[in-house]
Amino acid sequence: MTSSPDTVDQLHTPALLVDRAAFDANLAAMDAVLPGRKLRPHVKAFKSTALASRLAADGHVAFCAATTREVEGLILAGLTDDILLANETVDTARLASLAQHSDNAQITVAVDSAETVAAAATAGIRSVLIDVEVGLPRCGCAVDQAGPLADAARAAGMTVRGVMGYEGHLMMVEDRIERTDRVHESMAQLLEAADAVGGTIISGGGTGTFDTNTWCTEIQAGSYTLMDTQYDSLDLPFRPAATICATVISKSPKGWIVVDAGLKSLGMDHGDPSWDQGDVFFCSDEHTTLAPADLAAWGVGDRVELTPAHIDPTVAKHEVLWLVDDGKVLDRWPVDLRHW
Amino acid sequence: MTSSPDTVDQLHTPALLVDRAAFDANLAAMDAVLPGRKLRPHVKAFKSTALASRLAADGHVAFCAATTREVEGLILAGLTDDILLANETVDTARLASLAQHSDNAQITVAVDSAETVAAAATAGIRSVLIDVEVGLPRCGCAVDQAGPLADAARAAGMTVRGVMGYEGHLMMVEDRIERTDRVHESMAQLLEAADAVGGTIISGGGTGTFDTNTWCTEIQAGSYTLMDTQYDSLDLPFRPAATICATVISKSPKGWIVVDAGLKSLGMDHGDPSWDQGDVFFCSDEHTTLAPADLAAWGVGDRVELTPAHIDPTVAKHEVLWLVDDGKVLDRWPVDLRHW
Repeated sequence: MTSSPDTVDQLHTPALLVDRAAFDANLAAMDAVLPGRKLRPHVKAFKSTALASRLAADGHVAFCAATTREVEGLILAGLTDDILLANETVDTARLASLAQHSDNAQITVAVDSAETVAAAATAGIRSVLIDVEVGLPRCGCAVDQAGPLADAARAAGMTVRGVMGYEGHLMMVEDRIERTDRVHESMAQLLEAADAVGGTIISGGGTGTFDTNTWCTEIQAGSYTLMDTQYDSLDLPFRPAATICATVISKSPKGWIVVDAGLKSLGMDHGDPSWDQGDVFFCSDEHTTLAPADLAAWGVGDRVELTPAHIDPTVAKHEVLWLVDDGKVLDRWPVDLRHW
Repeated sequence: MTSSPDTVDQLHTPALLVDRAAFDANLAAMDAVLPGRKLRPHVKAFKSTALASRLAADGHVAFCAATTREVEGLILAGLTDDILLANETVDTARLASLAQHSDNAQITVAVDSAETVAAAATAGIRSVLIDVEVGLPRCGCAVDQAGPLADAARAAGMTVRGVMGYEGHLMMVEDRIERTDRVHESMAQLLEAADAVGGTIISGGGTGTFDTNTWCTEIQAGSYTLMDTQYDSLDLPFRPAATICATVISKSPKGWIVVDAGLKSLGMDHGDPSWDQGDVFFCSDEHTTLAPADLAAWGVGDRVELTPAHIDPTVAKHEVLWLVDDGKVLDRWPVDLRHW
């Protein structure tokens, strides 16, 4: 690994690039709608304290995370005074490890069952949010269980700061009016639970609903920073800022070229990456076969940039994000919050 | 991370488990057909020197790899005297780093173009195989270019050990007779190229064709060690040995449970993982929603094991493989050859 490359051409490939202009524009577009603590950036999307420090510098110092490792890393980096584990766990050892940092940041954990309340209390966690299922078949209690769970958490000595509910099933509703209407229905359930629970926080939303979900007190969004081709299908004021830079390692006269980035460097759950110079045939472990619109223009050693279909798992496959601007490398952001 | 857990119950989740009995049986089944150097194990499937040491102990000391990091790691671990980079690269810095180990192992690199021959020669690589395209639209030169490329490599001072060609498009042909016939057609092209190239090695094949490809002098297979649900559809004498152990973190009376392993711990390019206790609804970043056949039997805190659809990218998402036997943890194998 080159330790301090000056230009993108000097980077070994595959390399995960972040375009400075697009990244800055995405942050500015979000700030215009959700300044400061109105946004609770979701660290799972980028897993990097270096990137998170850019958000903290803009005033977004209350974060959320999907894993205990993400939470602990953000606290140790000194980036937050208010961090939410927006996920359930019954791993009391990991929760207890988090609780040791309670003097450095307010650590809040999502709970949706007697078992998760008990685990948080046993581990010494001081604050919880009641996670409510609002239509996505995943975590969250039923609306009518939110009040009793809050009572149980308070009885166990913890502060109940409010509720969270993730309308993830609505992120990709393409029509804006339909999306807004359905988010309203979903959030009506969360507001009903909030009445029963008490507290001041109503946390929800994501990149797809950051400005249509006007019922939450804070929005959990992270993918907007880097974006991907799936979110790009929506009418959002964000644009793809991350690409995989790869090198052409083979060329066939039959009409294809092969680059040295494959499904081990790309999140594949939303399908193949996109390429603006031709078609994507298929991805293998360490290869992607591409059909250029103009085959003659391409040779072995040339560079291509592929845009991933799903950014969160793509970033999780890389050790480094390279911040670049017009061919120059500006910064190296370690992806230091990976794994569990 | 627990440093020395004694039982699977003590592992933090998600955790990638390797069942000792299935793993040992897979190795024995392969040894019975391809002993010693007849097999050139493909390290990309498992990316672990600890796992590779089991294969070396069985006499498989000639390995192949997809990345320079895999090659270098195997040499530094002292596991091989003959390592093939079964992939093209024009990264002369990385090739030169490999070439520094030439006194510790014979390092052979696949080439398929004037550019890759030049890169290998420039970097001080001493041996190459001519990679021939035999039906899979990926790397490899045309059959009639193999001889001239071998001449160019020899003219550049390198030893040409023979040819390789990967019939990857035939790995999943389910009918055994059809598979054998089509592998024969594919390998006929490779044998024609071998005649023009010279040398003693004809390298090809994979887990799906390990015993139907009888034309190669050595077979490149790695996935057979751990297997996955896709390969399990074939009539192979290997069985799934790797599972993702996850914990139930939420349960809904509507009929589902949620576990703490998602698409960041599972290779998703071949689809969702499988679960033998019910249906898989969908995977999110850190969750999988499951519909148990018997919902009442499941509670928060229970453990499940999911079988990944594609093993190679699954392993690449983990830091550790846990070798287990009947609930006991026998060994911890770091996945130390990841990234590039």
